[in-house]
Amino acid sequence: MSKRAFLGAGVAAGLAAGVAPLKAWSQTPDRKLGYAILGLGYYATKIIMPRFAECEHSKLVALVSGTPEKLKTFGEQYGIPESHRYSYETFDRIVDNPDVDIVYVITPNGLHRTFTERAAKAGKHVMCEKPMATSAADCQAMIAACKKAGRKLMIGYRSRFQAHNIEAIKLIRDGAIGPVRSISTDHGFTIGDPTQWRLKKALSGGGSLMDIGIYSLNAARYLTGEEPVAVNAMESTDRSNPRFKEVEDIINFQLLFPSGATAQCGSAYTANFNRYRVSGPKGWIELDPATSYQGQSMRAALGGPPAPREPAPQAKNQFSAQLDHLSECILTGREPIVSGEEGLKDLRVIEAIYRAAREGRTVKL
Amino acid sequence: MSKRAFLGAGVAAGLAAGVAPLKAWSQTPDRKLGYAILGLGYYATKIIMPRFAECEHSKLVALVSGTPEKLKTFGEQYGIPESHRYSYETFDRIVDNPDVDIVYVITPNGLHRTFTERAAKAGKHVMCEKPMATSAADCQAMIAACKKAGRKLMIGYRSRFQAHNIEAIKLIRDGAIGPVRSISTDHGFTIGDPTQWRLKKALSGGGSLMDIGIYSLNAARYLTGEEPVAVNAMESTDRSNPRFKEVEDIINFQLLFPSGATAQCGSAYTANFNRYRVSGPKGWIELDPATSYQGQSMRAALGGPPAPREPAPQAKNQFSAQLDHLSECILTGREPIVSGEEGLKDLRVIEAIYRAAREGRTVKL
Repeated sequence: MSKRAFLGAGVAAGLAAGVAPLKAWSQTPDRKLGYAILGLGYYATKIIMPRFAECEHSKLVALVSGTPEKLKTFGEQYGIPESHRYSYETFDRIVDNPDVDIVYVITPNGLHRTFTERAAKAGKHVMCEKPMATSAADCQAMIAACKKAGRKLMIGYRSRFQAHNIEAIKLIRDGAIGPVRSISTDHGFTIGDPTQWRLKKALSGGGSLMDIGIYSLNAARYLTGEEPVAVNAMESTDRSNPRFKEVEDIINFQLLFPSGATAQCGSAYTANFNRYRVSGPKGWIELDPATSYQGQSMRAALGGPPAPREPAPQAKNQFSAQLDHLSECILTGREPIVSGEEGLKDLRVIEAIYRAAREGRTVKL
Repeated sequence: MSKRAFLGAGVAAGLAAGVAPLKAWSQTPDRKLGYAILGLGYYATKIIMPRFAECEHSKLVALVSGTPEKLKTFGEQYGIPESHRYSYETFDRIVDNPDVDIVYVITPNGLHRTFTERAAKAGKHVMCEKPMATSAADCQAMIAACKKAGRKLMIGYRSRFQAHNIEAIKLIRDGAIGPVRSISTDHGFTIGDPTQWRLKKALSGGGSLMDIGIYSLNAARYLTGEEPVAVNAMESTDRSNPRFKEVEDIINFQLLFPSGATAQCGSAYTANFNRYRVSGPKGWIELDPATSYQGQSMRAALGGPPAPREPAPQAKNQFSAQLDHLSECILTGREPIVSGEEGLKDLRVIEAIYRAAREGRTVKL
């Protein structure tokens, strides 16, 4: 099963169907900022680009790719004139394109830093896919570059804009399960083609943890609203398998939070799951799937037997809401709820997870 | 929620209803061995004793208790003559009672060793509740005592006789999910009364791990069919809470098995869960609840979307099947599938879990 097949289960029809009327922040000016999409892979072209249609404050105005055919195909499909199509060599000329407000970096992880820095230098705000970079040091450099340029930086943590996840966070904050005591979350898929960039350390920065396990980590952080203070980890990788010559397969990790909340997080390239359960003395909330492109499902046991639960509807799907959030932050001078600092926090924990697994000890943060 | 309320969810009517005709091992002699129940608490009197009714090779013939009223009440209820009722002081006289073949020890954990030794010395076979004892050393002593007496020793791992668990093991062994890569399992309940014996270390040997987390550990072992080679653990206990003066609340642990299979196991006294999911490259199997007295439910994703699954029916409920298994082993000269060695293996890992948490390092086994 490919990552796209797994995360995309049920992505077909109806993504935008049933979306309630869009609701703007009250003071947000009634205009759309222009996005350049940098990197025209599957996620950019099949998942993100179609979702500008539901955006209120965002529009697709430019494309950046190393593949001329892709620029032509998607340029024609989305009505992007040749003047707004860039190669990686010509990308820096985007500084002269006033239609572009934001560059959305959707490249392999190892290239996030350089393109973020180049975009900031060109005076553009930046949306960058997760993981933000392949090291905490790179994250810090990206934050500094955007700060120096006076531009905003947001990381593509789309689940923060997804209805079931929003509902889970709200229930927890409202005390529905009492204090969070235990989170169990697993993210993984069976990875295929051994030649893909995800399995090349220079491009990916790591294996399942960088790619899919980061969802377990990020969920544990947003569900508790806390930063972990201690990390354990255990890796299981068959290095004789051609897929895992350079990066890890399974790396499971445990987190301890200041309140006493705990998390057990799974990350795998040889198992298919996408779930979390958050438990406290008064009950639990479960999402399964939890962070997929579509099809989230929630059960909760809140003082009674477990029962399915429908979250409060959100005005926009997670992708459109994510795109618009950065636009709205720019238009109103606010900070994104998932800024570069958020990406850095994940990378700091990720580095601790790798260290804990390597050294066989609890790493304090 | 009390432990009994949680594990017993739905225990009410129908436990024996719909049970298929009992099916004996082909060579098992057609008679019933006599059990003495030692310790007349909730589990013994409400869960175990009523289940002799469905047994084929086991009958209740004697009672042992420190409380005269209980001996009278349950003696009358089950037609046990006064000659077959023992106090802890008179218990050793059971050596002279030929009606008693087996003593089933259902006391607080800290008393398992002494009563097992006394039963063996009286020439009786022993069924002992889990955890087998409060230390691996005690387990070894118990094994030695029964061996010396030429008597069998079995530990009350009832889930091994439960239909959904049997089905999960079979599916895994048949390769339905491919090699086991990841197990996620959580067992816990919100413990109440701070004065109960479970929260007194001398009687319990430890907190949630000894009481309920052992289900997570044992499941990880029977689902993989392997013994762990490395253990990580992380504890979270509010020692200022009157319930947790002596024993731990949450202790989560990670296991690594020789095949590369991994397990993340939760154990808690401040959260309610009872579940496991076993995942491999070809699919997953989930039980939720997994190890309750009643009401197990199974879902599986085996090359398709997740779907509920009904296991093959078992001839007897888990309690009657467990009782009969020891009788049948005695009658036919076989070793129980969950002998004293099985209990010892859990205790060795439990000691490693406590050590890993205390020392903040991976403990190799």
